[in-house]
Formats: sequence, C-alpha cells, structure tokens
Amino acid sequence: MTDPSALLHAFRTIRARSVALIEGLSAEDCAAQSMPDASPAKWHLAHTTWFFETFVLETHAPEFRPFHPAYRVLFNSYYNQVGDKHPRPRRGLLTRPGLEDVLLYRQHVDAAVWALLTAEPLPAPVLELLTLGLHHEQQHQELLVTDLTHLLFFNPLAPPWPAAPSLPATLPPMAWLPLASGVSEVGHTGTGFCYDNELPRHRTYIAPGQIASRLVRNAEYQAFVESGGYHDQAYWLAEGWDWLQLHQRTHPLYWQRTGSQWQEFTSSGWAALNPVQATLHVSYYEADAYARWAGARLATEAEWEVAVLTHGCAPSGALYEVYDTAWQWTQSSYGPYPGYQPSAGAVGEYNGKFMVNQYVLRGGSAATPPGHSRPSYRNFFPAGTCWQFSGIRLARQG
Amino acid sequence: MTDPSALLHAFRTIRARSVALIEGLSAEDCAAQSMPDASPAKWHLAHTTWFFETFVLETHAPEFRPFHPAYRVLFNSYYNQVGDKHPRPRRGLLTRPGLEDVLLYRQHVDAAVWALLTAEPLPAPVLELLTLGLHHEQQHQELLVTDLTHLLFFNPLAPPWPAAPSLPATLPPMAWLPLASGVSEVGHTGTGFCYDNELPRHRTYIAPGQIASRLVRNAEYQAFVESGGYHDQAYWLAEGWDWLQLHQRTHPLYWQRTGSQWQEFTSSGWAALNPVQATLHVSYYEADAYARWAGARLATEAEWEVAVLTHGCAPSGALYEVYDTAWQWTQSSYGPYPGYQPSAGAVGEYNGKFMVNQYVLRGGSAATPPGHSRPSYRNFFPAGTCWQFSGIRLARQG
Amino acid sequence: MTDPSALLHAFRTIRARSVALIEGLSAEDCAAQSMPDASPAKWHLAHTTWFFETFVLETHAPEFRPFHPAYRVLFNSYYNQVGDKHPRPRRGLLTRPGLEDVLLYRQHVDAAVWALLTAEPLPAPVLELLTLGLHHEQQHQELLVTDLTHLLFFNPLAPPWPAAPSLPATLPPMAWLPLASGVSEVGHTGTGFCYDNELPRHRTYIAPGQIASRLVRNAEYQAFVESGGYHDQAYWLAEGWDWLQLHQRTHPLYWQRTGSQWQEFTSSGWAALNPVQATLHVSYYEADAYARWAGARLATEAEWEVAVLTHGCAPSGALYEVYDTAWQWTQSSYGPYPGYQPSAGAVGEYNGKFMVNQYVLRGGSAATPPGHSRPSYRNFFPAGTCWQFSGIRLARQG
Amino acid sequence: MTDPSALLHAFRTIRARSVALIEGLSAEDCAAQSMPDASPAKWHLAHTTWFFETFVLETHAPEFRPFHPAYRVLFNSYYNQVGDKHPRPRRGLLTRPGLEDVLLYRQHVDAAVWALLTAEPLPAPVLELLTLGLHHEQQHQELLVTDLTHLLFFNPLAPPWPAAPSLPATLPPMAWLPLASGVSEVGHTGTGFCYDNELPRHRTYIAPGQIASRLVRNAEYQAFVESGGYHDQAYWLAEGWDWLQLHQRTHPLYWQRTGSQWQEFTSSGWAALNPVQATLHVSYYEADAYARWAGARLATEAEWEVAVLTHGCAPSGALYEVYDTAWQWTQSSYGPYPGYQPSAGAVGEYNGKFMVNQYVLRGGSAATPPGHSRPSYRNFFPAGTCWQFSGIRLARQG
Repeated sequence: MTDPSALLHAFRTIRARSVALIEGLSAEDCAAQSMPDASPAKWHLAHTTWFFETFVLETHAPEFRPFHPAYRVLFNSYYNQVGDKHPRPRRGLLTRPGLEDVLLYRQHVDAAVWALLTAEPLPAPVLELLTLGLHHEQQHQELLVTDLTHLLFFNPLAPPWPAAPSLPATLPPMAWLPLASGVSEVGHTGTGFCYDNELPRHRTYIAPGQIASRLVRNAEYQAFVESGGYHDQAYWLAEGWDWLQLHQRTHPLYWQRTGSQWQEFTSSGWAALNPVQATLHVSYYEADAYARWAGARLATEAEWEVAVLTHGCAPSGALYEVYDTAWQWTQSSYGPYPGYQPSAGAVGEYNGKFMVNQYVLRGGSAATPPGHSRPSYRNFFPAGTCWQFSGIRLARQG
Repeated sequence: MTDPSALLHAFRTIRARSVALIEGLSAEDCAAQSMPDASPAKWHLAHTTWFFETFVLETHAPEFRPFHPAYRVLFNSYYNQVGDKHPRPRRGLLTRPGLEDVLLYRQHVDAAVWALLTAEPLPAPVLELLTLGLHHEQQHQELLVTDLTHLLFFNPLAPPWPAAPSLPATLPPMAWLPLASGVSEVGHTGTGFCYDNELPRHRTYIAPGQIASRLVRNAEYQAFVESGGYHDQAYWLAEGWDWLQLHQRTHPLYWQRTGSQWQEFTSSGWAALNPVQATLHVSYYEADAYARWAGARLATEAEWEVAVLTHGCAPSGALYEVYDTAWQWTQSSYGPYPGYQPSAGAVGEYNGKFMVNQYVLRGGSAATPPGHSRPSYRNFFPAGTCWQFSGIRLARQG
Repeated sequence: MTDPSALLHAFRTIRARSVALIEGLSAEDCAAQSMPDASPAKWHLAHTTWFFETFVLETHAPEFRPFHPAYRVLFNSYYNQVGDKHPRPRRGLLTRPGLEDVLLYRQHVDAAVWALLTAEPLPAPVLELLTLGLHHEQQHQELLVTDLTHLLFFNPLAPPWPAAPSLPATLPPMAWLPLASGVSEVGHTGTGFCYDNELPRHRTYIAPGQIASRLVRNAEYQAFVESGGYHDQAYWLAEGWDWLQLHQRTHPLYWQRTGSQWQEFTSSGWAALNPVQATLHVSYYEADAYARWAGARLATEAEWEVAVLTHGCAPSGALYEVYDTAWQWTQSSYGPYPGYQPSAGAVGEYNGKFMVNQYVLRGGSAATPPGHSRPSYRNFFPAGTCWQFSGIRLARQG
Repeated sequence: MTDPSALLHAFRTIRARSVALIEGLSAEDCAAQSMPDASPAKWHLAHTTWFFETFVLETHAPEFRPFHPAYRVLFNSYYNQVGDKHPRPRRGLLTRPGLEDVLLYRQHVDAAVWALLTAEPLPAPVLELLTLGLHHEQQHQELLVTDLTHLLFFNPLAPPWPAAPSLPATLPPMAWLPLASGVSEVGHTGTGFCYDNELPRHRTYIAPGQIASRLVRNAEYQAFVESGGYHDQAYWLAEGWDWLQLHQRTHPLYWQRTGSQWQEFTSSGWAALNPVQATLHVSYYEADAYARWAGARLATEAEWEVAVLTHGCAPSGALYEVYDTAWQWTQSSYGPYPGYQPSAGAVGEYNGKFMVNQYVLRGGSAATPPGHSRPSYRNFFPAGTCWQFSGIRLARQG
C-alpha cells in the first residue's frame, strides 16, 4: 500500500476500529489480564500505538517527542532490538496509565502520523512500516477479542459486550473437494502487503487428496465427545493425551454441560450450543484427535492454500468458512519457507524467531478484521492453544 | 462492644474509613491483583460488606434480600461452611462488578445494618457478630493498604496515592528493657473485643531476658546488608537461605540501590532510604537473620506481650513503636493457646484453621487502623511474607 | 560418654549395627533414592563414616590420609563450613563408589578411629565428637530404615528385607493420665549425651490436662477414614486440606484398600492392616485432623516430656509405646529453647539452622536403635512428612 | 528379513550385543536413572526382552508362560493396548528384579524365541514382528549408551566404561554439495525392513540449495561460543533463548571450561575437547542458532535424504559422517508422510502418536549399531534434547 491517500484512509479506519471494539466496556474490563498468554485490551490499544511511535515516528518524524518516556519499555512486546520490556505476565498490573491516558496516547500518535502522512511525500520504507503497523494493529484487534473473551469467561456474571463478533448465520454444504495434486506454487504473490513469513513464493508437491468444503460443526464434534472420544487414548497424540490429563479436559474449553444440555461460552456470554455452527476454540490436539476419530486428517498448509486458490471461496467458489468463521489448524509445523529472510531491523523479530513448536492455522475467523487475511496468510500458535478462534477443516487421502 | 449506640458510631466511622482509603485512586487501580496472596482493593471493599451481609443480615435481618445473588460466592474468602468460593488467584479477573457497583453494594448493606441497629434491641450474639465484622473490616483496611502498595510497586510509573499511610516522624531512644521473668498471664482479659485466638488467658513461664525499646532502623539494617549479610549462610536458617536464592534477594523487597544510594518503595512511591526510620517489609527469615547478625534474637510472643504490659507504651511507657510503625515478628509459631476453642459456626474458620507453619507478629503498623490492636493481638503470616508492614524488635537473654 | 573403653565398645557395636541393617539386600537396593528427601542406604553408610573422617580424623588423627579425596564432597550432607556438597537429589546417581567400596571405606575409617581410641588418651573434645558421631550414626540407622521402606514401597515385587524392624506385639491399655500442671523443668539434665537443641534445661508452665497412655491404633484411625474424615474440611488445617488435595490422599500413605480389606505396607511388605497396632506413617496434618475428629488434640512437647518424667514408661510406668513404636507428633513447632546456643564449629549446623516450619516429634519408633532416645530428645520434620515412623498420642484439656 | 536362518543369526548377534554393552559395569551402574527421560541400562535390557515376550511369544508360542507375571507391567514402556505401565520416572526405583534376574529373563526369552524359530516354519507376520523386535533392540542399544553416558556425567568419579563407543578418527573434508532440486521421491523403498513412519514413499519438491559434506566440528562450534553466541538473542529462536536461560547454558551440556581449556565429557570420561571432531550433544535450539551464526541453516529431512541418495556416503561417495558420528538435526518437524498409516495392533503405537513438537534427526551416530540405519530412517526428539548423540550438518540456499 504505497498510495498515501489509501494509506491515510486505512489508517483512520483501522485505528478507529480498535477503539470501537471496547465500546460498552469499562476501564476495569480493559485492564485485566486473564493469563500470561493473554493481554489486557488496554495494552493492545497502547502497544499498537507504540508500534507506530517506535518504528515510524521515533526515526522518521521531525521533532518527534515521545508521549511519555516510560511507554517505550511499558508497551514493548518482544522486540529485543528496541530494548527493555515490561514483563509479559505483569501487563495486568499496569493500572496506570489508565484507559483514558491510553486513549490520549492514541490521539497523540494518530495526530503525529497524520501530520507525517500529509506533509511531504514519504519514502517507500516509511510507507511500508506504516502499512506493517496497520496489519499489526489488525492482528491485535483479533487478539483483543480473544483475550477479552477469555477474561469474561472467568467471570460468573457473564457481562455483555456489545462489540463482540458474531458468526455468520450460514449453513454451508459439506462436500469433499479434490486437491490439485502435483507441483504447485505457494506463498504470497502480487504487489499487495504480506508478512515476511509468506515469502518466498516457492514450489511444493501435493499428493492426491481431498479437502472438506466446510468446517466441522458442533453437532459433529459433540458426537465425538459423547462417544467417549476424550477418554480413549487411541485418538490422541501422546502429548495431547498428557495435555488432556493436565488440564482435566473432557470437552472444549468454552463448553459446559448443564444436565443433558450443552452450552457454549461466546464473546456474548453463555448460550445453548448451536449444532450447525462451526466448532470453535479447540486446540491442535483436539483438532487432530477429532480428525482421527472421523477417519480423516488435517490438511497441510500447502494443501490448504492450493485448495483456496483452485476452488475459490463461497459464494462464488466452493470453499465455505474460509475467512469469516474460525482459523483452521493445519498439520504443518510453523517453519521457514525455502530461502526465507526475516525483514531487516527490529521488525525482523516479528515472525522468524517463533518458528519452532508452533502449528500453522490458515484462513481467518469471526474476530479477524474484514480484509485482513489472504490465501498465503500464516497464523501460528502452540498446539495447546484454545482461546483463539480455532476450528477444524478436514482433509483425506485419495 | 454491646452498647448499640457506640456500635452505631463505630459502624459509621469504620465503614467510611474503608472508602476513604481509595480516594484518588482509579477503578483500575482498585481492580488489579498483584499476586495470589494479595487481593484487589475492590475485593476488600466487597468482602468486608459480604461479611455483614452473610453473617448478620442473612440470618438476622427481617426481609433480607441479597444485593446480588452471585456475590455470596464471589466475595466469600475462605468460609467453607458458607459454601462455594470464587478462586482466590482469580480475584483480579472480576472486572465486574465494577467499583461503582461495589460502592452501591456497600451503601445497600450499610443501610440494612443501620436499619437493624436502630430498630428494636438486638440480641447479644448479633451485636457480637457486628462487632466482629468491624474488627474484620479494620483488618482488611490494613490488607488493602499492603496489597495496593504491592501493586503500585510493580508499576514503573509509581502513581501517587493520597491516602497512603505514613510513618510517625519520631526518633525513639534505644534501650534494653528487662523482661519480667517467672510465671505471667497472657491472653486477652477484660470485657473488650478480642478474637478467639487470644483466648483463653493462661499462665506461661518467662525466662530472664531483655527486649529492645524500639525497632531496628534502616541504618542498622543497611549495615547488615552492606557487611555481606545476604551472602553469608551462617546468619540464615537453612530454609531462609533457600528462600533467598529462590527469590534472588540481596536486600529487602522494597529497597533498591541506585549507584551508592539506597531507595525504598513506600505507599507514596520511591524515596531515599530514611536511616532513622524503622525497617519495614522484611520476612521472618530476614528478621531472624538480622537478629543473629546483631547478636540477639526475636522475642517470643509471650515475652512481647508481658513486656508491653509491664513497661507500657511511649510516651507514658518505655516501649516505642509498639502499634504505629511495623508489626514485629516474634519467634513463636502460630498455634492454639491451652484450651483454645474456635468460635461456633462459620466464623470459627476465622483463625483456628491457619494454626500451622505461620509465625506470630505482634503490635501494629502505620497501616493499622488506630485503636484496632491491643497487647494480646496475634497477627500471623508465613515466614516468607514481606509485603506486610513487618519489622524487627530485638530481644536477648540474661 | 568420656570413658574410652565404653566408647570403644559403643563404637564397635553401633558401627556393626549399621552394616547389619542391609543384610539380605542387594547393592542395587542400597543405591537407589526414592525421592529428594530420602537417601540411598549406601549413602547413609558412607555419610556416617564421612562424619568420623571429617570431624575427628581430619583434625585429630596423626598422619590422617583421606580414603578417597572426592568423598569429602560426595558425602557431605549439609555442612557449609566443610565446603561443597554433592546435590542431595542426585545421591541416587552415585553408582560409584559401589557398595563394596563403601564397605571398605567404613573399614578404613573404623581402623583409624580404633587406632586413635586405643593410642594415648584423647582430649575431651575429641571424645565428645566421637560420641556425637555415634549418636549421629544411630539417627541415620533409623533414616536408612525409613528410606529403604519408602523405596521398597514403590516396587510392585515387594522384596523381602530380613533386617526390617517389627513392632512390639503388645496390646497396651488405654487410659487418660493427668498432666502435672504448674511450673516444670524440661530439657536435658545429667551427664549423659544430648544434642545442643535439648539445652538449656529451663522452666515451663503446663496447664491442667491429660495425655493418652498409648498411641492411636489402626482400628481407631480406620474409623476416622471410613467415617469420611478425609473428605470433610472441618477436621483439617487449611494447609493440611491443600496437602490432601495436592497428593490426592484418602488414607495414610502406606495403606491401600483391596475390595473391603485394608492392607498396610511395612518394611516386610504388604500385610493385612493389624487393628490393634499403632497407626504409623501419618503426617502432622493427619495426626492433627484425627485428634480433632476424636475430640482431642496433640500434646505440646513440654507436656509430653513432663508426662514421661512423671508417669514413667511401661512396664514399670503407665505410659506405653513411648520409644519402641512410633515417633509422636506434638503440636509444638521446632524452635530454640530460651538461651539456646548451637555447638561451636561446623557441628553447630547440626540442629539450629532447621528451627523453622518443622514440628517436633517425641519418643522413638520401632526403627530407632535401642537406647538411642531419651525424654528430652527432639525429633523434627515438616508437617507433610509421612515416610517416617510417625504416630499419634492424644492429649486433652482439663 | 523373512529368511529364518538370517533371522536366527541376527537374533543371536543383536541380543548378545546388548549384553556386551554393559561389560565392565556394576549392577548399580545399570540400575540408576539419571532423569525421567532416560532409563536404567537394566531397564533397556528387560524392556527389549519384554518386547519379544509380549508381541511374539505371548501370542505365537505354544505353551507360552511368562517368566514373571509382574514383568508385563514393569517393562511396558508406552503401549496402552498392552495395559498398565510402571511409571516412567520410577524406573530407577526398580532395584528388583536385580541385574542377574534380568539376565536370566533374557536367557529364558531367548531360548523360547530360539525354539520358536527353529521349529516349524513361522508365518510371515511373526517373522515381521521378530524383525521389528530386533530393530527395536538396536534402538535401545543406542539409548542404553546415551542414558549411561548421561548418568556417568553426573558422577564426579567419572567411572570408566570399557564398551563405550568411540568416534571415527577421520578428518573429513568440507565442501558444499549441490542439492538435486526438483521433484524427488523420498521414503523407504525396496524389500528391506523399515518403520511405518518411513512410508509411504512419496514425491516432494526440493528447491535449489547446498549441503555440507561433513558435520560442524568442535573448533567451529567453540568459535561460536567464544564469540558470545550464547549471549546474543539475535541468533536464537525465542523459545531457544528461554531454554538457555532456564537451564543456564553457556555452552553444550557436556562441555566444561577449566581455566582457558575446554573439556568434553564422553562416554569414556572427561577429555580435552578435540577440535577436529564433530560437535556432539547439542539441542535443536543450539544447532539452529549455530547455523544462523554461520550464515547457513539446517537441511530439511527431504533434502538430507535426497543428498544421501544422490551423493552417496564416503568413502565411495561425497558425504562424510552420515551414519557413524552424530545424528543430524533437520529443520523438519516430525509428522506423517502423505497417506501414512500406523501399523496394526499395539505396535502401531511405536511411532505415530509422537508426531507433534519433535524434530527429525537423520543419519546415525557413533552409538548406533552398525547397519541399523538407512537413508530413509527418521529419528526424532524434542527440540531441547541434548543427551543424545546429536550434531549439526549445515545447508544453505542457492
């Protein structure tokens, strides 16, 4: 996105969307941290702002002055080249700055970026950093949703959250679609934005197989649960079985049974389990176990990408629930593409250093900002992750 | 306190003081939990209210209706006889009810207690429960201070806190006062209020010895630190040494050295270490090690109590810093007095079930509400505790 | 024991007894370590030898040469003044030196001590160190038994162990014996050996009360278990309840139920629970909970000591199972007597540095070497300890 | 291996080799367990025997009688379909059966297998199970070596071990060999034995690149260490950096520095670091960090396999140190090949259930039995593993 006016528009829209997400929530709601892996909503609002301040304004804005000197450390997530970081498990202790201060911080940085963008033409690297910052912000919009959902899950009062995302009310058809076997190219192509981990575009070989046209539904997953799937080691990876025992799981994290009825916790509170909606918030272990129980498997990330490119997305294409429902666990461990080079500078820490012991999810979810994802997009999380909007798309051989 | 009008006055005063403590703080400040052992300020405000609602109104108020049905579980601390409890480490996740709701909850319960107290005469057991509730609230006022201080300690912004307690600006003289040896009586006496753990009053034998007229000062403790005391196992209990290594302590929790200067974190923020003020926030292990280094020891709780009774408190008596500076670690493990009986009912869980692996602290601190403590008062914490206002009064034989 | 010929006899007898304990066991049995708190039998045999080598021969033997230079570190338990220590949790990895080497080490040191003892008269401090070494060895004889029992407990083959101790086949009568109330003296007296923690002898005040003539029996404890005692928080200290949940205990460690039958693991293997034998291997938490269930309490260590001195031991006295069955948990936390001074030198680390968060057990057990204990003897372990031969003697007020 | 006489010969040879490995070791050496991930040598000797007893004799031998009924549980490693398992972290507590008993157990089972093999012709599935058992035993021969080395590493006496493996005394040349890019087939082919995870043979696409003719040497790795490589986050995966801090590593596990000299612990004890020998016992994190420091990367498992097939092994081929020095970490996470099917029955638990969060190592090591490995062989361990004989072969793009 090297067109400054398009960038201006995107900047205004995306930055506003972050703040819109917390409408109807209290400052207290935005300050708490439910676990070390999650962050307070307020922190997301501040960190995305820090990203622009640190990577763009600090270097490229004439007369840059930090909004507050302590923020450089407070809101650094994991960029060692930037320097010290406030410890991640203590983000929830940052009652100061308050939400109001963070919103002022956003305005301050927004104004400075605005001034930068509307002054003389910016060199391409700065435009690229600004673009990266917007995609970064969209990622944190989704994390803000997942983290808030996790926080509210622990509150017996089940507070309502007006801006919570909702699933599409579709009932997509199930079909097994053939995978285009042979040598294919995967990885980002074209002139649009992508992260460094989507490159280089490269060839891969895909064996004959099929992929499901839609995600696994609650009614299907419920059958797995009720047939004793969580109590039969035969379906589980050894490590997955240990994970089940450690966390004492007998169903997905956000499910509960009241008598004979299943309920599901959503970002709008507890609701009766909807049998025709996609199963959400399962770990890689659960996705893998379900697939084995169902006589299928998870797709590789290359299979997934080629399927999207060849079959297309509904309504015009044959694949349903690609970007708007749940991220889809693949069986691919997250690693570098052949010839992968991290971006230069501190932003090179964005993706590459996490390429071990994580699994790739493809697609997008109800919590993903519209337009944020694409066929080559690689999301990744450890196998035990289930507070993300993660679901299951099956594949099989032949 | 069986005089209803005195009780009315105390109720109004003490309940108001709790709310006054959070003046100048934000709702976010009051919602965070710095560690599982600490609680959010908001939780203290709600739990003390729950105490009156559950133990007094629920049983004794005609037409009692709970303010909110979920609060009975949310704000139960550890009373198994009352039923379920919200998990302690998750108190900081209770962003709802918000601070405003909790203040309304307080008003609702205050009004109901007020109505009860001003209607027909109440039976003695109800008056006793109300009295217990007020002493309970005073204990939580101190905990609110210690917990907030701990929270603010983790914030690099060091937010100011107007209502934070301050130490008396005295410079008490040091003297060794003789202990009255022989058989003495200890434990509560008289008609005033006491907790069940201060009873029965009973005889004990005290050997000849001496007790310090004042607490150990920062300048003295600094000499211990700077002479290498934290690096010489000879001064430490084996378990204390392990504790040092585990927490990587080389000085008290709230101290830090900047160049050659020592600073101390107080509930008002970071300040230069005041050499003539009492050392605060040390663990039992540190108090014991310091005493050994100084060629002395900690007093037993019986020695402490008899010393206060025989020497009296300054200004009229010879003992300084008894109630207004720092709780004083004794060498006595917290256990039952001969013939101890817990109170009947759920409030019997108040003290007795904690009588193992904790050490008694006597006196009171700058954070203790005035008039709350007394000679027979037994505070108790595990040996590794240092976020309380805990200090050192030495004793020695002969 | 300053009579050299008596010391010679004791040395020969006690040193031989240690080796006799492992008769019938394999080198493998003697090398394994069942948990960090326990040690291999071979380590006990070596460490007790190290004690004589390090504290006596190294300083006092002319022409001393260590058996092996590495042993000074390998077999140091916790004496910081001696220097480095092999890490405790890795004692079971010391497959070398082998058992045969350790037995040679014993012979080597025995010969050197023998030579020292039979040469010119030794100064009193050396005789005292030798005496301390023998008492130290007797303590480790008991630990060797407890640790081996714990190891064998984990082996489904339940190997026989010829030298395992057995309980006296008595059926002692139950009576409540009065405690001599008033001021009494406790602590060691006379010219015999004692540890530093039994001194100084001092006065204490004892309130009126009673103590049980015998220990709690299996049939009695079984009634506690079967009445739901392990599932009712009302009987347990809060910390004890947490301990139960953490270790998932529903009965004593060495019990198991097969159908409706209870079995007990003893150092001779699994056997039907003997209803008239004393309950063994309970933690402080369990002893305390049982006492509460039974409407009684544990004695203080002073009460226990005075009771033994005033009532005497069966058969001539009224107290049964004092020294030959199970150590008896007292409610007393382990701490210093008034005026306590640790012994000089490295042996001063023997007792004093453990005086926190441990509870005193009095008496002796089936595994205690005959003659090793005495009325003033203070054994001590953390409250969760249950692999020791620990039992329950009740007391009550009035 | 369906030729019974070849099988007979292999059975005799391989079974004898296991026992030869412990020559010169004591029963104690063979009984200890250095960590939960490692097993005692005795356990390896018993478990490999259990494999034949359980999977072959139990079902296929007429008049089969178990050597000891408890062994079926004691020596089951992880086969849930076989039933209960003795807990892995407690294998070192199995002082019984003693080493002598385990050697008798081996003889007993050897005789029964011998009888089976020399009686009437066996059906193919039984021959296949016997063959699997022999490959299984060879894997455990290597584990026995790695586990014993780890145990001896913790012993300050550094006991000698006559049968310890030694590295080839070669000095292989360094060259960058081209990778055959394009579509290749990988996976096992031919009629020889392979594990289920080497199948199905399938096509894969390989990008242009190069692979090193030999492994990274100690002198090279030392340069990485001495240039500060263990203190610069830029070289490390984020998880690898956390691993370094947690284990406080500043060099490979089996290295130590004495003054300015580096030493290396080998299965023959401590020795001066040999600069021209391959670096051993590095984790995936270390291998990956070294590669980044060296401006290279690890190969994928497909690249490795194709390189061996196209370049051949020295002396006739161009690749050195393929099977006889150190297993070579690849960047490939361990997962199923397209169309992978686990073997039927309990032996299907051999490989498939571990296909998550482990990384593939290719080749073989000085501890691998000669002839055991092959080009398609997939070894796998978690990324933090370093007690295996694991080394580094670099690759690079272009």
